[in-house]
Amino acid sequence: MTASRVRAAVIGASGFTGGETLRLLLNHPDVVEVAAAARSAGEPLESVHPHLLGSGLEFTTPDEVTARAGDFDVVFLCTPSGEAMRRADGLLAAGTRVVDLSADFRFADPERYARAYGREHTAREALAEAVYGVSEFHRKEIAGARLIANPGCYVITALLGVVPLYEDGIADPSSPLNLVGINGTSGAGNKPRAEVMHPNAFAALLPYSLQGHRHAHELEDRIGRGVVVDLSTAHGNFARGIHLQATVPVRADVRGELSREALLDLYRARYADEFFVRVNARPAHGGLTDKDYRRYPTLAGVTGSNFCHIGLDYDAHRGAVKVVAVTDNLVKGAAGSAVQNMNLMLGLDETAGLRAYGF
Amino acid sequence: MTASRVRAAVIGASGFTGGETLRLLLNHPDVVEVAAAARSAGEPLESVHPHLLGSGLEFTTPDEVTARAGDFDVVFLCTPSGEAMRRADGLLAAGTRVVDLSADFRFADPERYARAYGREHTAREALAEAVYGVSEFHRKEIAGARLIANPGCYVITALLGVVPLYEDGIADPSSPLNLVGINGTSGAGNKPRAEVMHPNAFAALLPYSLQGHRHAHELEDRIGRGVVVDLSTAHGNFARGIHLQATVPVRADVRGELSREALLDLYRARYADEFFVRVNARPAHGGLTDKDYRRYPTLAGVTGSNFCHIGLDYDAHRGAVKVVAVTDNLVKGAAGSAVQNMNLMLGLDETAGLRAYGF
Amino acid sequence: MTASRVRAAVIGASGFTGGETLRLLLNHPDVVEVAAAARSAGEPLESVHPHLLGSGLEFTTPDEVTARAGDFDVVFLCTPSGEAMRRADGLLAAGTRVVDLSADFRFADPERYARAYGREHTAREALAEAVYGVSEFHRKEIAGARLIANPGCYVITALLGVVPLYEDGIADPSSPLNLVGINGTSGAGNKPRAEVMHPNAFAALLPYSLQGHRHAHELEDRIGRGVVVDLSTAHGNFARGIHLQATVPVRADVRGELSREALLDLYRARYADEFFVRVNARPAHGGLTDKDYRRYPTLAGVTGSNFCHIGLDYDAHRGAVKVVAVTDNLVKGAAGSAVQNMNLMLGLDETAGLRAYGF
Amino acid sequence: MTASRVRAAVIGASGFTGGETLRLLLNHPDVVEVAAAARSAGEPLESVHPHLLGSGLEFTTPDEVTARAGDFDVVFLCTPSGEAMRRADGLLAAGTRVVDLSADFRFADPERYARAYGREHTAREALAEAVYGVSEFHRKEIAGARLIANPGCYVITALLGVVPLYEDGIADPSSPLNLVGINGTSGAGNKPRAEVMHPNAFAALLPYSLQGHRHAHELEDRIGRGVVVDLSTAHGNFARGIHLQATVPVRADVRGELSREALLDLYRARYADEFFVRVNARPAHGGLTDKDYRRYPTLAGVTGSNFCHIGLDYDAHRGAVKVVAVTDNLVKGAAGSAVQNMNLMLGLDETAGLRAYGF
Repeated sequence: MTASRVRAAVIGASGFTGGETLRLLLNHPDVVEVAAAARSAGEPLESVHPHLLGSGLEFTTPDEVTARAGDFDVVFLCTPSGEAMRRADGLLAAGTRVVDLSADFRFADPERYARAYGREHTAREALAEAVYGVSEFHRKEIAGARLIANPGCYVITALLGVVPLYEDGIADPSSPLNLVGINGTSGAGNKPRAEVMHPNAFAALLPYSLQGHRHAHELEDRIGRGVVVDLSTAHGNFARGIHLQATVPVRADVRGELSREALLDLYRARYADEFFVRVNARPAHGGLTDKDYRRYPTLAGVTGSNFCHIGLDYDAHRGAVKVVAVTDNLVKGAAGSAVQNMNLMLGLDETAGLRAYGF
Repeated sequence: MTASRVRAAVIGASGFTGGETLRLLLNHPDVVEVAAAARSAGEPLESVHPHLLGSGLEFTTPDEVTARAGDFDVVFLCTPSGEAMRRADGLLAAGTRVVDLSADFRFADPERYARAYGREHTAREALAEAVYGVSEFHRKEIAGARLIANPGCYVITALLGVVPLYEDGIADPSSPLNLVGINGTSGAGNKPRAEVMHPNAFAALLPYSLQGHRHAHELEDRIGRGVVVDLSTAHGNFARGIHLQATVPVRADVRGELSREALLDLYRARYADEFFVRVNARPAHGGLTDKDYRRYPTLAGVTGSNFCHIGLDYDAHRGAVKVVAVTDNLVKGAAGSAVQNMNLMLGLDETAGLRAYGF
Repeated sequence: MTASRVRAAVIGASGFTGGETLRLLLNHPDVVEVAAAARSAGEPLESVHPHLLGSGLEFTTPDEVTARAGDFDVVFLCTPSGEAMRRADGLLAAGTRVVDLSADFRFADPERYARAYGREHTAREALAEAVYGVSEFHRKEIAGARLIANPGCYVITALLGVVPLYEDGIADPSSPLNLVGINGTSGAGNKPRAEVMHPNAFAALLPYSLQGHRHAHELEDRIGRGVVVDLSTAHGNFARGIHLQATVPVRADVRGELSREALLDLYRARYADEFFVRVNARPAHGGLTDKDYRRYPTLAGVTGSNFCHIGLDYDAHRGAVKVVAVTDNLVKGAAGSAVQNMNLMLGLDETAGLRAYGF
Repeated sequence: MTASRVRAAVIGASGFTGGETLRLLLNHPDVVEVAAAARSAGEPLESVHPHLLGSGLEFTTPDEVTARAGDFDVVFLCTPSGEAMRRADGLLAAGTRVVDLSADFRFADPERYARAYGREHTAREALAEAVYGVSEFHRKEIAGARLIANPGCYVITALLGVVPLYEDGIADPSSPLNLVGINGTSGAGNKPRAEVMHPNAFAALLPYSLQGHRHAHELEDRIGRGVVVDLSTAHGNFARGIHLQATVPVRADVRGELSREALLDLYRARYADEFFVRVNARPAHGGLTDKDYRRYPTLAGVTGSNFCHIGLDYDAHRGAVKVVAVTDNLVKGAAGSAVQNMNLMLGLDETAGLRAYGF
């Protein structure tokens, strides 16, 4: 691969996913120009993103990016749901590639989108060519795409965590899949609101959307097989990361033979060639203990990184597989996947700018 | 009620539940003497419990408490599982009442205990008279008991949260009950270990026992009806409290008519006379929002208190009731329930020393 | 003391200090009526204070409290600075006692108030009779007062921490007193703002007012002796509590003879009769270690309580006394002191409703 | 610069600084081999460093690294103080370069080392050639060195924060420099201990070494000019980062003319060519507010990165400059500086592998 000189723009650059996309692009070895469009045009990036202090860049306007869209190899849309539908056609017409981090192009069927998001889909032509962007599952289609629907943060974490069980015939699709996702408070967005103020959120989880989260629709759409997804969501008292706990019903005929080791083998084989998906079979340094916390991965291991760590166990008494999948909601769950998809679209090394370990 | 002069002792006073029992007893209006027995005999309480600085009390030995057991109206056992079995007979013979905060007397059937805890039950006579201590459900038996089996922290939180749905015929007992419990790190005990060190646990959840937590057995025992309990447990990055998320399968014949309002009505009626159980139907100050965090309770509202706050919702699309129940694992989940049970046993006001709101 | 039946009102009841005053009053053994006035009149308390779920109380209007001010034994003003000046005369005229938790009556000299707060003092008559309310230092005057100026949270913590050194002639008043105060995010108020949103404040300190905090003026006023107070303030990533670190210059003639033990003796003697001020001379359970964290108190020991824990050390090489004083900013630093002052004013047991240990 | 193929080894690789050095080296573009030596030889890195899951590397023994020291371009010593003295001569003799992250080579004068660390210096020859490694201040000497004494975490943060004030004649060296450093709990090391367990450290600061921290000696040594350094240290309830608050006495003759703007100008000029040191003069997005948190940097902006952000203010009333300097204690305060020094020693781009922004 010859050295690349990628020019990228981010529209909606003042939110958390916008700021994270900028953070990754500014340290990407192949990216030579980054434009950041937001309402706060004219201000330096650090006016809303303290960690980007001293980058020397200022926000520009979305219109300026649109006007010279053809100058960019890729435009990232980090805008609220509904806005990408209005922008996609124009950007594609200008010849740039688009990665949409919102939900606008995630449902192939516009009726399903309407049901989940309560608004009609108004960009059906673009929708028809959009490719759903879990890089690990759709690598080839992504490489040839012009428009990527970047997956929801809970969704990509859950898909990486449970899909092998459905593919392999272990999961019973006729029983509900139970998911509880704990997302960092960055997932609540950066608009100030009382419930997410630090003193209120400091030592508590903030459950929300228990009547039915939109990502449950997206998951049912992607898992298929008629699986019902019971998803419960909450924000945890940490800034970043999704801790996803899945209880997967096991088909009656395989319950007897299943074991944690067999599950670990399955997943290690499934993800052997994936740089960003790693299975936790951590040996306990100093021996096992009663409460063996090292059997499972923790968010702390992926924070700031594009990795997904997966842990597995089997409750033989009840015939249920337990999956723990952890990602950084702003990286693998958003900006990191978006850049990974950009790398695929532009023919770069898929891991470029994304290899850093978390901590 | 005339003024009481209660003398109480705590054995196993150097752990977190022991320290919390001391904290509550030292501020109880009817308690005039508190003895604290632990291995660190001779040291002031603050040597292990900084918050009890200046109490003027020192730890004594378990043997000293046992030797003068008859002087105490009640002895709290905050000892590791297995030890209460060895102590109960002697204490009861000396004429004191016993509240056991460990698991030793939680299973009426000693075989079930053996299955869950991997050791034989060696105090079957005492077991025969032990009363299971969810004050709200067993008030009358507790008042007449000499030996209380204080319930597990996940268990009492879950029982208060889901039992009305089984009693009322809403829950379908033939489908698994799915519970995810996030407990504070105090639930991991105060023995130093690497995984629970602050830098490692700061921004992560620590899942554990996914192969089958002991409290799942206790829950299946108490809920009965043949219900299978899928319980997943983790420690969250907060010191105290249990955030319990339940997904309760609904009987097919009632799915159509169910609503969040109907659930709120059911629970408010069920707990109308209970001081410590409160149903969250919080109006949103300033109007509803997309993500209505105020629909559900948060741990921050019960920390340090003996309250259980319950929130409810209904996913009509999938026929599942969602319950959020929050308690302080060290209070309602342990020491607070223990003192509430003491109040009942000694004929005191059930809420004495326990009415403080959390924060 | 005969049983009392105290009626109390809180104006400005929807903020953090208002909510905390309500929490304490609702659990006070002598208080039989509590009125809570705020803009959100008509809503239940839990609409803004989740921890008060199920109290059965609703907010009323400030005007309603004012109109029947004579019915209350005491009115707490938890209003923004400037508002108490407008309300004090009317309330006093109606015959009620007033505890002002704002800064309006903290400076005896109205010119100093004007300098620190940038507005003229408009209630000079009331100011003339206001008593500054550090209960431990002004017990007698408080008992006879009608209007209490409750001290600032940093100020009371610092005064309890350093005044003995000035009284005893150890501190050198001609050199600056250096204070760094880390306050919980509740100290930033409950108005939503981006910098205090959980994802932004989660793992950081938020310094502020380094050009000169108003409490430095209040401290210079109370310490007197011409002492210059260098105060630096920040919010820490915890909800409650002030951790105050003082470096106190020592007079040249006493540097040689000073020691940590001598300092501990001085403070233990000074506060021997004070229930709420406790000196940390904690023995290390299991022996001393290199980094002896138990030499000093921690916030975790006073959270939720009215206690002030004080720790001391001496850097003999540099001739500086180090003081660590910790309080809960909402309790000892605000509502707890306010209720303690109420107890004194009404002739109740000074510790009534306030004896609970923290955790 | 031609592509480099650096081989590096880390001795003491199981601690926090060792793990961080590995994290940076594994993502360094010029590093082709990394050896990690620790007591847990034979185990994969993830047995103690969960974030390095799937690296494919195992720990080796310190002896193995020593035996083939000549194969490595550089060896990082992340060992407890005292051990580097025993290893340095052998490693240098084998022809490798050494970066010592402990304190062993930080004092040019072995007597000062003995005073601060309570042990004699036993590698005086190596000490004579050691270069103190604040890259920004000693770039040229580092480039020619074989042995680097990597500075203490509080020290480098403080030096970057205050040295310009001494160089420029603003600071008064005859008055004490007051520093309060709040370090993440990772600074306490990864050996389990009760005080640093999550439930105890969750909502508190843990002050320590107030009788005189060793880094105060190192600072007095580096600042020189006879300056007395009053350093108070504590661990904050976050995993990583140093928040340093300095109160710098100003020379009487410059007090009148000083201003925040002048200070910002001085620092921006001083650090204009430094990639890793950035001065916070952040404009407030949406206008200034009473408590202007954006005037100063926050830890959250540098976590995980090699940056030092500096903020400044002037308390004109009291003639004191306030400096806030923030770094990640494990990166700029340890492993990041170590790699930056390696880059200089090996003639690589100084910023290679270190350019990532924090978050």
